[in-house]
Amino acid sequence: MSIVITAFEKSPDGGKGLARDTRVRWALEEVGQPYDVRYVSFQGMKQSDHLCRHPFGQIPTFEDNGLCLFESGSIIFHLAERHGTLLPTDANARARAITWMFAALNTVEPPILDLSVAKFQEGQQPWAADRLPIVVDRIRARFQQLSARLGDSEWLDGAFSAGDLLMVSVLLRAKPSGILAEFPTLDAYVARGEARPAYQRAFAAQLAVNAA
Amino acid sequence: MSIVITAFEKSPDGGKGLARDTRVRWALEEVGQPYDVRYVSFQGMKQSDHLCRHPFGQIPTFEDNGLCLFESGSIIFHLAERHGTLLPTDANARARAITWMFAALNTVEPPILDLSVAKFQEGQQPWAADRLPIVVDRIRARFQQLSARLGDSEWLDGAFSAGDLLMVSVLLRAKPSGILAEFPTLDAYVARGEARPAYQRAFAAQLAVNAA
Repeated sequence: MSIVITAFEKSPDGGKGLARDTRVRWALEEVGQPYDVRYVSFQGMKQSDHLCRHPFGQIPTFEDNGLCLFESGSIIFHLAERHGTLLPTDANARARAITWMFAALNTVEPPILDLSVAKFQEGQQPWAADRLPIVVDRIRARFQQLSARLGDSEWLDGAFSAGDLLMVSVLLRAKPSGILAEFPTLDAYVARGEARPAYQRAFAAQLAVNAA
Repeated sequence: MSIVITAFEKSPDGGKGLARDTRVRWALEEVGQPYDVRYVSFQGMKQSDHLCRHPFGQIPTFEDNGLCLFESGSIIFHLAERHGTLLPTDANARARAITWMFAALNTVEPPILDLSVAKFQEGQQPWAADRLPIVVDRIRARFQQLSARLGDSEWLDGAFSAGDLLMVSVLLRAKPSGILAEFPTLDAYVARGEARPAYQRAFAAQLAVNAA
């Protein structure tokens, strides 16, 4: 086995699958590649041997025969490109699927992460309660737009792609807050993602570690 | 001429080149492709004919012979892939350059954008002054890590790539606040990007519109 990824020794979500290793595990399962996991602690993530793999001291990273990558988007793109099952072969459809990968990470994920920051990093600040509704409304605005675009479609653009894998992974992070459930179209879309056997295996793998 | 992008009719920065059309103009100049621009107003961006191009009602978009893309990262990747000058040909080097594209957009840009939000969207809130230093320190933490990785290198990984184009574009957004200047390594890196003839042409093109 040559692929090694990194993941939290103990995920802050206690096994909900919201850390970014889950999306990489999911992609590995979709493309049928076995992998090993190196678990890192919060202290270990900031030390030089991990910083060498990931300059921002985060997880996941990806190593395969001397290639070392970080950023879940980049790792998933690499897997999609190398194994050919997560991106369409038609050039235009492929470009559109890649657009959704970037949209998930650059447009939809940031406001969702802001909510975690508002709750956990700034939760004790005097402004926390007053600011929270503003942060939540920014997520709602994005979800409304995404929901309108998705409509009755099963996936964002034709067959399931790496764009859907990332979008579902990002939306899942808004599930514990209850915001996802406010948008039945997106809620059902995420449920379709979670129902995929590859997702199930990825989720179970991270749960086995974090529930231990 | 077949490529058409969209940009703000009047950029909020008044021509500093910080809106996301500038990075796409820059990539177009690097790969030597002529393009037309369709200018959209803030009202127009939220109307159905633009939402059809960009589901989140933003700029830039990219149209070329029936292909319609949004997200600056995806547009730049498409140009890099099609024209072959912004990504290395070696497979591993290419994967690492793509990693930097995602790092720019998913790890470095979000805290920088948070500062704009804190200043312009939340600037009148009672917590604005107390919260600002926290937001600024998050940018500094990322800049310290990026600066450590860049070190004495000219670009992030070998020759100038789409990863550098995006990272420089993202870092530029921290220039008006003075934070970029606190990190001489990054400041010089950005200056090397700005000195490229392709960047100069892109900057001049957006300035001509926004200074009018």
